[in-house]
Amino acid sequence: MAEKALVAIVMGSDSDLEIMNEAAKSLEGFGIAYEIDVTSAHRAPHKTAEFARNAAGRGIKVIIAGAGGAAHLAGVIAAESTLPVIGVPIPSVLNGLDSLLSTVQMPAGIPVATVAIGKAGATNAGILAAQIIATADKAIADKMTAHKEKLAKGVEEKSAKLKAARAK
Amino acid sequence: MAEKALVAIVMGSDSDLEIMNEAAKSLEGFGIAYEIDVTSAHRAPHKTAEFARNAAGRGIKVIIAGAGGAAHLAGVIAAESTLPVIGVPIPSVLNGLDSLLSTVQMPAGIPVATVAIGKAGATNAGILAAQIIATADKAIADKMTAHKEKLAKGVEEKSAKLKAARAK
Amino acid sequence: MAEKALVAIVMGSDSDLEIMNEAAKSLEGFGIAYEIDVTSAHRAPHKTAEFARNAAGRGIKVIIAGAGGAAHLAGVIAAESTLPVIGVPIPSVLNGLDSLLSTVQMPAGIPVATVAIGKAGATNAGILAAQIIATADKAIADKMTAHKEKLAKGVEEKSAKLKAARAK
Amino acid sequence: MAEKALVAIVMGSDSDLEIMNEAAKSLEGFGIAYEIDVTSAHRAPHKTAEFARNAAGRGIKVIIAGAGGAAHLAGVIAAESTLPVIGVPIPSVLNGLDSLLSTVQMPAGIPVATVAIGKAGATNAGILAAQIIATADKAIADKMTAHKEKLAKGVEEKSAKLKAARAK
Amino acid sequence: MAEKALVAIVMGSDSDLEIMNEAAKSLEGFGIAYEIDVTSAHRAPHKTAEFARNAAGRGIKVIIAGAGGAAHLAGVIAAESTLPVIGVPIPSVLNGLDSLLSTVQMPAGIPVATVAIGKAGATNAGILAAQIIATADKAIADKMTAHKEKLAKGVEEKSAKLKAARAK
Amino acid sequence: MAEKALVAIVMGSDSDLEIMNEAAKSLEGFGIAYEIDVTSAHRAPHKTAEFARNAAGRGIKVIIAGAGGAAHLAGVIAAESTLPVIGVPIPSVLNGLDSLLSTVQMPAGIPVATVAIGKAGATNAGILAAQIIATADKAIADKMTAHKEKLAKGVEEKSAKLKAARAK
Amino acid sequence: MAEKALVAIVMGSDSDLEIMNEAAKSLEGFGIAYEIDVTSAHRAPHKTAEFARNAAGRGIKVIIAGAGGAAHLAGVIAAESTLPVIGVPIPSVLNGLDSLLSTVQMPAGIPVATVAIGKAGATNAGILAAQIIATADKAIADKMTAHKEKLAKGVEEKSAKLKAARAK
Amino acid sequence: MAEKALVAIVMGSDSDLEIMNEAAKSLEGFGIAYEIDVTSAHRAPHKTAEFARNAAGRGIKVIIAGAGGAAHLAGVIAAESTLPVIGVPIPSVLNGLDSLLSTVQMPAGIPVATVAIGKAGATNAGILAAQIIATADKAIADKMTAHKEKLAKGVEEKSAKLKAARAK
Repeated sequence: MAEKALVAIVMGSDSDLEIMNEAAKSLEGFGIAYEIDVTSAHRAPHKTAEFARNAAGRGIKVIIAGAGGAAHLAGVIAAESTLPVIGVPIPSVLNGLDSLLSTVQMPAGIPVATVAIGKAGATNAGILAAQIIATADKAIADKMTAHKEKLAKGVEEKSAKLKAARAK
Repeated sequence: MAEKALVAIVMGSDSDLEIMNEAAKSLEGFGIAYEIDVTSAHRAPHKTAEFARNAAGRGIKVIIAGAGGAAHLAGVIAAESTLPVIGVPIPSVLNGLDSLLSTVQMPAGIPVATVAIGKAGATNAGILAAQIIATADKAIADKMTAHKEKLAKGVEEKSAKLKAARAK
Repeated sequence: MAEKALVAIVMGSDSDLEIMNEAAKSLEGFGIAYEIDVTSAHRAPHKTAEFARNAAGRGIKVIIAGAGGAAHLAGVIAAESTLPVIGVPIPSVLNGLDSLLSTVQMPAGIPVATVAIGKAGATNAGILAAQIIATADKAIADKMTAHKEKLAKGVEEKSAKLKAARAK
Repeated sequence: MAEKALVAIVMGSDSDLEIMNEAAKSLEGFGIAYEIDVTSAHRAPHKTAEFARNAAGRGIKVIIAGAGGAAHLAGVIAAESTLPVIGVPIPSVLNGLDSLLSTVQMPAGIPVATVAIGKAGATNAGILAAQIIATADKAIADKMTAHKEKLAKGVEEKSAKLKAARAK
Repeated sequence: MAEKALVAIVMGSDSDLEIMNEAAKSLEGFGIAYEIDVTSAHRAPHKTAEFARNAAGRGIKVIIAGAGGAAHLAGVIAAESTLPVIGVPIPSVLNGLDSLLSTVQMPAGIPVATVAIGKAGATNAGILAAQIIATADKAIADKMTAHKEKLAKGVEEKSAKLKAARAK
Repeated sequence: MAEKALVAIVMGSDSDLEIMNEAAKSLEGFGIAYEIDVTSAHRAPHKTAEFARNAAGRGIKVIIAGAGGAAHLAGVIAAESTLPVIGVPIPSVLNGLDSLLSTVQMPAGIPVATVAIGKAGATNAGILAAQIIATADKAIADKMTAHKEKLAKGVEEKSAKLKAARAK
Repeated sequence: MAEKALVAIVMGSDSDLEIMNEAAKSLEGFGIAYEIDVTSAHRAPHKTAEFARNAAGRGIKVIIAGAGGAAHLAGVIAAESTLPVIGVPIPSVLNGLDSLLSTVQMPAGIPVATVAIGKAGATNAGILAAQIIATADKAIADKMTAHKEKLAKGVEEKSAKLKAARAK
Repeated sequence: MAEKALVAIVMGSDSDLEIMNEAAKSLEGFGIAYEIDVTSAHRAPHKTAEFARNAAGRGIKVIIAGAGGAAHLAGVIAAESTLPVIGVPIPSVLNGLDSLLSTVQMPAGIPVATVAIGKAGATNAGILAAQIIATADKAIADKMTAHKEKLAKGVEEKSAKLKAARAK
């Protein structure tokens, strides 16, 4: 990926990689260059703060942060960066309810754009990042329209398949 | 507001206006033109679908949707629009837990950028919309940097006030 | 099933089919013709709206909709149709609590008749549809009486089996 | 109301009357005759069982039952009657979460058509009852179409009012 | 078990038998005669009501009822019987939270003595029944004292075992 | 109350008195002598342990314990006494959900007979204690039968009042 | 307070002061010098990080941090400091459940010593700080013993008062 | 382990050993001597009370207590000891939500320093105990600084590994 990354994906632990890869796949689908890294609000606060402070300067447009439990990563990055930050709650011992609340319930002044718990959320984080970039990029906006059509077509195919199966 | 709106704020009921006005205030703070309306996924599905389909064409860049209970408004708009959609969960008989889950737990393919329940969330929806616009607007990006500094200064003032009160 | 369908079963994804088939089985038990399809409030909003608007005209009397997570399908259909809509919350990463709240907490004006989470709910959706049809169909009403007797008999058989096992 | 009641509204306590009156108002809006009574699954099991067994014979088409806490009323009536039973969860010390789960999580075989917690749910219980009756009553079905239009018009009026207020 | 049963164990479904057998084991440990049966508040309301009304007359002193989901069995029996009724919440799709709330949140006037969700609760239901009988039966009261000592001894043994394992 | 107390009511704080008085009222309604005291598992562990150990010896048959938050009082008493212990969860900052779970989720071996959160639960704790005493006291058992009839009569009166109000 | 502070109390907003003052009162009761300040993980990340990094060097032994909603303050400080950090969850729109989970569910490696939601938690945060200091300070340890006796005495007084009131 | 133990680890059941061993491992990492035992607030109240009362006298500085469900162990020990008590909520049928609330929601006067549910919490309990000891032990404080650096280094290694994997 020689292109300069527009989106940065970070996660609190490499055990979150399987989930956060879904965000990467979404971005690849839209042809958006991204970087991906492990950092931790709690275990590596300096690395995290430095990452957050420098992201905009490096040309990053959107940050996606995944974390579980007392999921502070997205919020801590949002505190240090002026970029839009998307938070992905990773499932936990409490099924991700703690991760969700820790990510979404941010105080007035510092938003985190929170998506669904787990893989669906990671997929959507990538799409949301693409939607944000598309607000000023006609080519991505067109791909987003195509994405919508693909979703609808997917439903039509499943519908047809179900009807075919029942017709037998 | 003669300028063409870049952000559309919609809400399920006029009883949500007091909360959703916080989003408007945030946008005004960044000098971003917006429109604000009442529409309902359930009571006015045609108006809602039409609004969602036409928003991008009218120059809207970001949609903010507030709803409570089985809060479908943001999700339904996200289904019809390629724009980034920010969902504000309005407090309910269950304190907004239902509103939050109905807004955030979207399936893979159709993200809703969910913020906190209630007024803090509405304030942050406006800021998040500004952050999204700022990804391609240097002037707004500079205002976002100033916003961050103002937040930090506000903490310093409260800190000073607390210390002064204790010094007496 | 050459008869004209009286009940339409729809679901947000073909992965919900195993659960929603329980609704179909219930209807078959009462000899009620039905149709079954995949549609999605989020991925296929046009198909969903069209389905909902046309259902009554095609002779459908009751709609059963199953969805999980931010489960908007039943509510969105209820917004577009005057028919009774039964919502089946599909289990999710949060065990279906999000699906349940997204389905049941509808605002005043647009009811969704919500049943239990998962297979028991799907079974009951079919029975509830039959009860609704039975309000104007003596033959189905008689079958409903027989259904009740069968339930009681089932308990008697389990009771007898337990006693027999213990008598050994 | 000299007409023979088609819907029976029952509630566990007269303290639920303020909420359950919303169901009555909905029915009155559709011109559907109803009866309303207090009975309790726990304090008056015989009255409740007798009511449930006789309702269909007396010409009742739909039963609406409201109860809070360990809300067994709708389920107990559904056990004794073949009619569709609509359950309204009444708010409680736990905000109605207990009432909702006790009403909706019925086992396979005995559905309760559950609506939202509190007044919105009671309003919707009346509308749902009307929808059920409308499946075999063209006049009520026409009123339901008018009801939908009125909902949409209500949103338009609120939208216009909001725009007028902002234009000043 | 030729002796006349003092305790009746009932459950909503034979799938609850594995859990409810723990109650039986507790009673056997205290040498208390019991009967065990399947009945259902929803599928077999007449059998359930008859069981509840006749239990005291047949010499039953305590009733133990296990059910899951919208767990009405214990409450419905408590409505019909003057005996102490112990409710065991059976785990469900929501881990038994619904079963617990449906069992414990009874209205003023009709208590259900609720124990923990699942096997621990079933075990304790048997012990609680024994404690109730022990209020008027010196022999059982003495066994209860021995039960307490056995519990403490069990802890001592585990403690010794842990220490021995670590000493190696 | 010169009679020797058969029931002991204890509570963690005198702020619980308003709620726990409902248990006392229930016992007075059955003419059962009781004692009432403040003790705390956390602030006064010795007093609590001594109370629990001596209760049976002083002729107490049943213990009722009310506490909120991390409500350990009932469990700690159950650990020290062989008597049946009834736990009343007192409402808290979390509406009593913490109090309920801390009271009911006891491990196998040491039951706490848990009733509903708050006043309804306290009322029922007194009735449950009476039911336990009634297992060996014909006079109390007869009063329990009368109590049931009074409950049903209360429902009839409310029903009559509602009908009278509507007839106007 | 001329003495060098051993405990630092910080809170996310001056609106938390009423609650966090309870921690100060506890420390005053033990004669432990403290400092108190407003800082925010999200609005003032630099001030917060600097505070956390310097606290140990300034002679602080324990940090108490109160925050609500997505309560990251305690965790963020724990990431930067080697001192024991006590987290006080401040009540929120969700009654503090979000604050509690955001504070307590820290990942392996970085503990936050979490206490109860709200004022009781703040009081206990001060006591816990005193217990920590008491592990190496005989004078404070002796005061802790006195504190325990005072708690027990307080229960005795409430008990006596209740008995006196009933004796009238 | 010939050294005198500074930390005591106790757990309610030997089935908690796998989780609580994580606390032991943390302490071993800091070279802090500890003892480990099984005791139960409910099954062995005398052993528990004796342990709690004698711990400080035996030179114990910090107590770590793990328990699940109605998790009273930490609170009961805190009631009897002046030492800091760390509570580890053990996962349960409700995923540890009951264990967490039973441990953390202690009343004003008797704190329990609560950590995360399960293994992460147990690991952190050991680290928190080390932090407490480090407030008066320079050698442990230095190891705590090293621990922080190791955490950050661990993140760097994972980051490098992820980048290396992607570079292929």
